[in-house]
Amino acid sequence: MQFYYNPMDRACKSYTGAFPTDTAVTFRIYWKGDGAMPDHLDARLVLSRDGEERKPISMDRQSYGYSVTLRFHQTGLYFYYFRIGDDYFGCGALRRGSFMPLKNLVSWQITVYDKQYRTPDWMKGGVMYQIFPDRFYKAGDLPIAQGKILRDDWGGLPNYRPNEFGKVLNNDFFGGNLAGITEKLDYLHDLGVTVIYLNPIFEAYSNHRYDTGDYLKIDPLLGETKDLDNLVSEAKARGIHIVLDGVFNHTGSDSRYFNRYNHYDSVGAYQSPYSPYFDWYTFHSYPDSYDSWWGIETLPAVNETSPSYQEFIFGENGVLKTWLKHGIGGYRLDVADELPDFFLEKLRKAVKDCNSEAVIIGEVWEDASNKIAYSKRRKYLQGHELDSVMNYPLKDAIISYVLSGNTKQLRETIDLLIDHYPKQTLDVLMNILGTHDTSRILTVLSGKTCSNKDEMAVTFLTEREKASAKMKLMMAAVLQFTLPGIPCIFYGDENGMEGFIDPFCRRCYDWTKSDNELIAFYKQLGKIRQNNKVFRDGEYKEVFGDNSCLVYSRQNGTDDTIYVYVNNSSDVYTMKFDGTYVDLLSEKKACNSLTCGARSFGILKKVQ
Amino acid sequence: MQFYYNPMDRACKSYTGAFPTDTAVTFRIYWKGDGAMPDHLDARLVLSRDGEERKPISMDRQSYGYSVTLRFHQTGLYFYYFRIGDDYFGCGALRRGSFMPLKNLVSWQITVYDKQYRTPDWMKGGVMYQIFPDRFYKAGDLPIAQGKILRDDWGGLPNYRPNEFGKVLNNDFFGGNLAGITEKLDYLHDLGVTVIYLNPIFEAYSNHRYDTGDYLKIDPLLGETKDLDNLVSEAKARGIHIVLDGVFNHTGSDSRYFNRYNHYDSVGAYQSPYSPYFDWYTFHSYPDSYDSWWGIETLPAVNETSPSYQEFIFGENGVLKTWLKHGIGGYRLDVADELPDFFLEKLRKAVKDCNSEAVIIGEVWEDASNKIAYSKRRKYLQGHELDSVMNYPLKDAIISYVLSGNTKQLRETIDLLIDHYPKQTLDVLMNILGTHDTSRILTVLSGKTCSNKDEMAVTFLTEREKASAKMKLMMAAVLQFTLPGIPCIFYGDENGMEGFIDPFCRRCYDWTKSDNELIAFYKQLGKIRQNNKVFRDGEYKEVFGDNSCLVYSRQNGTDDTIYVYVNNSSDVYTMKFDGTYVDLLSEKKACNSLTCGARSFGILKKVQ
Repeated sequence: MQFYYNPMDRACKSYTGAFPTDTAVTFRIYWKGDGAMPDHLDARLVLSRDGEERKPISMDRQSYGYSVTLRFHQTGLYFYYFRIGDDYFGCGALRRGSFMPLKNLVSWQITVYDKQYRTPDWMKGGVMYQIFPDRFYKAGDLPIAQGKILRDDWGGLPNYRPNEFGKVLNNDFFGGNLAGITEKLDYLHDLGVTVIYLNPIFEAYSNHRYDTGDYLKIDPLLGETKDLDNLVSEAKARGIHIVLDGVFNHTGSDSRYFNRYNHYDSVGAYQSPYSPYFDWYTFHSYPDSYDSWWGIETLPAVNETSPSYQEFIFGENGVLKTWLKHGIGGYRLDVADELPDFFLEKLRKAVKDCNSEAVIIGEVWEDASNKIAYSKRRKYLQGHELDSVMNYPLKDAIISYVLSGNTKQLRETIDLLIDHYPKQTLDVLMNILGTHDTSRILTVLSGKTCSNKDEMAVTFLTEREKASAKMKLMMAAVLQFTLPGIPCIFYGDENGMEGFIDPFCRRCYDWTKSDNELIAFYKQLGKIRQNNKVFRDGEYKEVFGDNSCLVYSRQNGTDDTIYVYVNNSSDVYTMKFDGTYVDLLSEKKACNSLTCGARSFGILKKVQ
Repeated sequence: MQFYYNPMDRACKSYTGAFPTDTAVTFRIYWKGDGAMPDHLDARLVLSRDGEERKPISMDRQSYGYSVTLRFHQTGLYFYYFRIGDDYFGCGALRRGSFMPLKNLVSWQITVYDKQYRTPDWMKGGVMYQIFPDRFYKAGDLPIAQGKILRDDWGGLPNYRPNEFGKVLNNDFFGGNLAGITEKLDYLHDLGVTVIYLNPIFEAYSNHRYDTGDYLKIDPLLGETKDLDNLVSEAKARGIHIVLDGVFNHTGSDSRYFNRYNHYDSVGAYQSPYSPYFDWYTFHSYPDSYDSWWGIETLPAVNETSPSYQEFIFGENGVLKTWLKHGIGGYRLDVADELPDFFLEKLRKAVKDCNSEAVIIGEVWEDASNKIAYSKRRKYLQGHELDSVMNYPLKDAIISYVLSGNTKQLRETIDLLIDHYPKQTLDVLMNILGTHDTSRILTVLSGKTCSNKDEMAVTFLTEREKASAKMKLMMAAVLQFTLPGIPCIFYGDENGMEGFIDPFCRRCYDWTKSDNELIAFYKQLGKIRQNNKVFRDGEYKEVFGDNSCLVYSRQNGTDDTIYVYVNNSSDVYTMKFDGTYVDLLSEKKACNSLTCGARSFGILKKVQ
């Protein structure tokens, strides 16, 4: 028996992707076999709520096949497949349906989210830019700072060797600061940036500042509160929002709260069981043995159930609201997997209470709709927790395509994200190609690898390798800028920066060199997004896809449809294509046919 | 920094694989870097119990590196990695350790099982044979049976087309029976078989009999209780045990318990809410809507918490003990994922109470040590539930190797099973290449595929395709017979039977044709297992492994070590190898070197 079902096709599933509670959704399967559809087929949609038994639901016979309309009243995950007669029809490759034996059957997923769920409209269609504050731009002189190594060699190799005690202290600072970012706002605005995501900026011992010392104080090396205010208002004047890094799973051991080294004038949890912060932490043997993030003693883990911690984070004068009142656009949440569902729910309430337009982005490395972390299914995208996540699955898929030339992982990942995520999440997904936690994209696309940090410190691409990697980066960037979500540029990637993993991916932006070709390309991509509303919320549709070539459209019903193609093979593809189109990148026109040259890409728009 | 750790190496983890409660296990990491090991390194083993926080445990400095000894008192799953200075060292490819960025870190797993856990010794070193009873051998004439189609064309094409109501009824019977199996015991004994696993034999409507009608009655088409008794005692006389299929998640709708069609003289749950079986089932709307397995109405799901159902299964006169008292060797549990942990624990108690040597094998398609089914982590292999599982991961890995020529999946899967499973489970793992739920292995290895059942019904291998697939099958069988666990032959695979999925993999054994070459090969493999005790419980060790060639040894400290090689490339490998060895398959001798010819395999033993 031959039937057709594809959840990406609205003729089959009347609501694409995750759906809101209480919405009627019709599922249709179509007869595609030889001859007439057999009589007396018994067709069921077999549904199960996550972790519960499967229930068969009868489908109605139609001229084309079978249909059933369902309405879901509870948020959550559901799984389904079809039973037609005695055959099982489930989720095959690229999520199109296929018949398969019962015991190998893969179900499709339905994510049901709260119908009240909204994500910030201002973010849609934008371009994000991630800055590691110590390494972007230094305005003025470095202040003096005790216990820290102040580097006067902007662009030098970050310290990466362990000290005599085997510790990498991450305590060398190049002095990038908030005023420096403010000075470069025009550069970012020219690039088309609309959101800046800053790695942590609060007082901390180390240069990455994930070991927060004081959540209510800007790190003196970065500036003062007024420097943040100035950055926020200057950014706002250019239509740019500032998103901060929220690190709520742990503090630094050298902090106002734990105060292991007595650097703060507070009574920290390490110092006394009578400390007001004592119940924030979990001690196994007081005071030297305590829960910490991944076992790192400088990052004591916080007990999220502590009422005083919750008040400190969520309260009227708490951390979240304090900085929102300074005009920031939202938070990126570090290690969201380690924050319990109840904590994320309260966090969302606090943030949205203060500013309903603020964004909440989670650090989740996998499909966030169905992730099981610590043996528990998480509810990130059901409407009560996150607006967006860092899109690591898409990063991996884009890299896989650009390096291998095979579309499989890319097409599957795109379809999976669209099928599993709420549309409002999809439109604000943070589409990265690299972050402070990964090797730089240019280095990744060069294919070069090193086995240890000493080697990484001295390995750079030759001119020839770099030229080849840049061609690949352009193809990757076209995908990043035109697929659903908003692209996020890791500072300097647009200027050809290279580097292996931390700390080599966190080197200083070299303002003395400018890769004009690459920067111009990124600016062009930024303009294309700005000029074409379909990138705000336009639907994605695969127009053509085979092993090495992918053509897709973005359309929203009102604005001009945009077509994008990538061809990572040495073949040339020619397709029929009605009308006259202009390639927004090359400005070449094409009439009635689309030619996808070898190793090429294009972004096409119909000429009026 | 360069360190060495590999959990397969007892120098690194003093107890290989899962370990018993209260056992001291030492973990050692070795410095392998250039020059002396740096001073002042801070080395930790970071451990977390499943779903709980990670705890860093300090390691002691040794001349070679670092070590720590742990003892686990609770059964369960644990995960660990190492932190050395500020670097993270986790589970890399092939489970050998490698440094990796924290956020990509993959932990190793520790399975801790109850130290009382034993699995049946009689099973170790044996050979299993799976029989689909209706299709193996028919002794005598068919009895008459109402509502069933009795086929007089042994070997004919099983009905696979839906009827006018779109149902495949699976109600055609070829008449294979228990007396037939008894008649063929000498054949099986010659093949080296020591355990027969029978698909269900209790009264049922369909030919697969997973829709049990009466758990206490042999299906009349198969014989009577005395025929089972006779089979058991004749098998015993040949050193063969009989394992039955235990189907406890659901009954048939046409059963003594549900009695939807009033074929039984009982009052079934479908017939009256006052039925003694009413609470075995879950009705949504009485009586026509009820929970059923995967939504199949002929298989109403049982409520495992029902006290009367538990008594019926576990009680002194219950199903399990009834058949154990008839001398069967144990049970294979259908769809173990659907049976709750508490049910499997009670089941184990009942079975082992009655016969501590009986075996319990679960149908689990994935790594059974860490499977999450219905959002819950299962405890199959922690000592209170299963002895063994059907080894689908190894089947997939062997097929992948034989078809692709690449060892990667095979080597990873072997290492993973050894690292995750208790040794006593490993020694009785049911190593399959195919079952009643999959296509026949010969067909799979031919690479042939069909898209629908009509095509499957008429597609057979050409002589040439068959010859090529047979060569591949021999390589697969060498792996199946020499890796840890016991091989299970699906009836007729040893005689070159082919067939796509159900029902084409369930055709009648054709006794008129005999593939002497293949049968002789299987007999030889059976003999090799019988003559070499290392296959009972010998440890597996990878001696050499690259992209396409794998050499491993099995040794137990007392018997002769056996070396096995498989080379699925067109290259010839020559390796130094002390002493003189004989290849037990070809009987060729080799002196001081091992030559692995192109596309070849061998099983070597030292000549005294």
